[in-house]
Amino acid sequence: MKFTLLKTDAQSKARAGTIETDHGTIQTPIFMPVGTQGTVKAVDQYFLKEDIKAQIILGNTYHLYLRPGTSVLQQAGGLHKFINWDRPILTDSGGYQVYSLSANRKLKEEGVEFRSHIDGSKLMFTPENVMDTQRMIGADIIMAFDECTPWPCEKGYAEKSMHLTHRWLSRCVTHFNNTTGLYGYNQTLFPIVQGSTFHDLRKQSAEYIASMDCEGNAIGGLSVGEPAEDMYEMTDLVCSILPSSKPRYLMGVGTPSNILECIALGIDMFDCVMPTRNARNGMLFTKNGTINIRNKKWDNDFSAIDDELTPHYSKAYLRHLLVAKEYLAAQISSIHNLKFYMWLVTTAREKILEGTFVEWKNGMVKNLSQRL
Amino acid sequence: MKFTLLKTDAQSKARAGTIETDHGTIQTPIFMPVGTQGTVKAVDQYFLKEDIKAQIILGNTYHLYLRPGTSVLQQAGGLHKFINWDRPILTDSGGYQVYSLSANRKLKEEGVEFRSHIDGSKLMFTPENVMDTQRMIGADIIMAFDECTPWPCEKGYAEKSMHLTHRWLSRCVTHFNNTTGLYGYNQTLFPIVQGSTFHDLRKQSAEYIASMDCEGNAIGGLSVGEPAEDMYEMTDLVCSILPSSKPRYLMGVGTPSNILECIALGIDMFDCVMPTRNARNGMLFTKNGTINIRNKKWDNDFSAIDDELTPHYSKAYLRHLLVAKEYLAAQISSIHNLKFYMWLVTTAREKILEGTFVEWKNGMVKNLSQRL
Repeated sequence: MKFTLLKTDAQSKARAGTIETDHGTIQTPIFMPVGTQGTVKAVDQYFLKEDIKAQIILGNTYHLYLRPGTSVLQQAGGLHKFINWDRPILTDSGGYQVYSLSANRKLKEEGVEFRSHIDGSKLMFTPENVMDTQRMIGADIIMAFDECTPWPCEKGYAEKSMHLTHRWLSRCVTHFNNTTGLYGYNQTLFPIVQGSTFHDLRKQSAEYIASMDCEGNAIGGLSVGEPAEDMYEMTDLVCSILPSSKPRYLMGVGTPSNILECIALGIDMFDCVMPTRNARNGMLFTKNGTINIRNKKWDNDFSAIDDELTPHYSKAYLRHLLVAKEYLAAQISSIHNLKFYMWLVTTAREKILEGTFVEWKNGMVKNLSQRL
Repeated sequence: MKFTLLKTDAQSKARAGTIETDHGTIQTPIFMPVGTQGTVKAVDQYFLKEDIKAQIILGNTYHLYLRPGTSVLQQAGGLHKFINWDRPILTDSGGYQVYSLSANRKLKEEGVEFRSHIDGSKLMFTPENVMDTQRMIGADIIMAFDECTPWPCEKGYAEKSMHLTHRWLSRCVTHFNNTTGLYGYNQTLFPIVQGSTFHDLRKQSAEYIASMDCEGNAIGGLSVGEPAEDMYEMTDLVCSILPSSKPRYLMGVGTPSNILECIALGIDMFDCVMPTRNARNGMLFTKNGTINIRNKKWDNDFSAIDDELTPHYSKAYLRHLLVAKEYLAAQISSIHNLKFYMWLVTTAREKILEGTFVEWKNGMVKNLSQRL
């Protein structure tokens, strides 16, 4: 993997760059659509590539480990081949899902014992077996196994958890270095900064993560319920410590405004279920604000969902599909929202390169807060 | 509308022709995907046009009348514009759905009183208002309002019902002729032969329908539970009476084998929910037989769903998507099955034009009965 920093904004810490992987080049800042179980929900790979123009997608190790399982994925020749996606993929480590989805979890030094949310079977994730699983999935970028602390969180717990995440990271790095990719292309490991919303812990964690000298770095444990101001403060602090020569990935963030603000703080990569999850509930993002397509007011509004991004379907039609509980509602809305997120990061990049990012960002954040 | 009969098979009654409408030409024999509520379930119009290459789709008057309603459809400029579909559309009359979906229906000379299956509201369909509704929907081909008799059915009931359908037809024709299309293009009305599985009634009904001299004719009341042999016998009898210079539409039929057998009897047009409904349940049609993709055996079968029609996704991947209850399962399966149905009628047409239809049909019917 090769990261090239093309430009840093003069009026903010926003950056434009490229990440080269064996499955192609990613233009940063970038948003990565979430393909939880080997599919970006309700979106065909054709649209993902040709219409949304996704440059990299995310897969969830926890979900893929449970279904279809590593044996099927390995026989398929990895996730890319299994799902017919030839561009880059990033997998998370499963840590977040173990905490949010599974039952009866027991945190130990060795790893986490838990029960599958599907069939209740008893399983264990360790730094080592999570590296093995991500080797078998075969993503271009794989994540270290961490504990994602909830918010709010006692400082004592956050500190203990951070140290565990750091010890697990050493084991991840060792095991990663002792193994190789299974499918003839390179994989790279990103470590994750934790420390909840405590300045000293975030500083300590960022310094430790930076010292590992991995090819890219991630920030976890944010966008878990804390106020946006705390998220920005922690992101700013961590970005000031993580090396500028490596891409920075802010995990699980966020709203379009969150993304713009965090680009301004020096983040290069984002992922979030929001564009697809909200789409399925009828919430659409546009550059003029959000639309709740369930509202009666769209009943006979035959204007395009979005003149530029989704000109071929009207608001009235989409509302009808949603009210009638038709599959196509989720399909159209998900594609639209992902196109909007891609438009947002692509335009941010153009503005950074032009030197007009901050002005554009401030106007856009204002627009985005409106409800249409 | 203009029907041109290009060839009648020497060894069967199969025909190849074209139907010209103001929204384009249809090559017959044709299968019409069912777009119940203004969408072919789980299929984006892009795929419907570019990948499936549907030439005409069907809409359901009953569903569209309830949602989004005629006011919205009229404001949109008709169903074509509302759903962004510029090729031909056919609408049924709503008669079938009134019997199968609604509650508390009361059959009267005037029409049918019923309660909406959505909100229980009391409604009435009459030959006249069904013509008005179909004018407002704006399909290229619209259907007469009929009673679709259930099977089995007492002969006395079938006869009474047939006469009612005939009286309703006269009212439909009168009202249709007294009104015009609302959107600047032509609509044409097809009457429907009824008579259950009684030879004399079918004969009487076919003769009456033929005497109306409409631009095309339909056969209803079949594929409602009767043995396939009865369906074929009735279809054969009715086709021998309906004029060969008009297209013949067999409503709601059927399996791929049903379609091939009925093409051989002189049918030109088909519609059925089977390809999309069965797709959502994991049943796929291929030229070598049917696949139940839920079966464990496909778990690690990485061969294409179909080398020709769906080469880009594997059986193992589709099984994973279905088991994981992902939207994309319905999307891929529905597109595949509709491509198969289109392949079936397109190939039948080629074989008719080549003069090799019967031999090909007999081999294909044998293949289609296999379970893979």
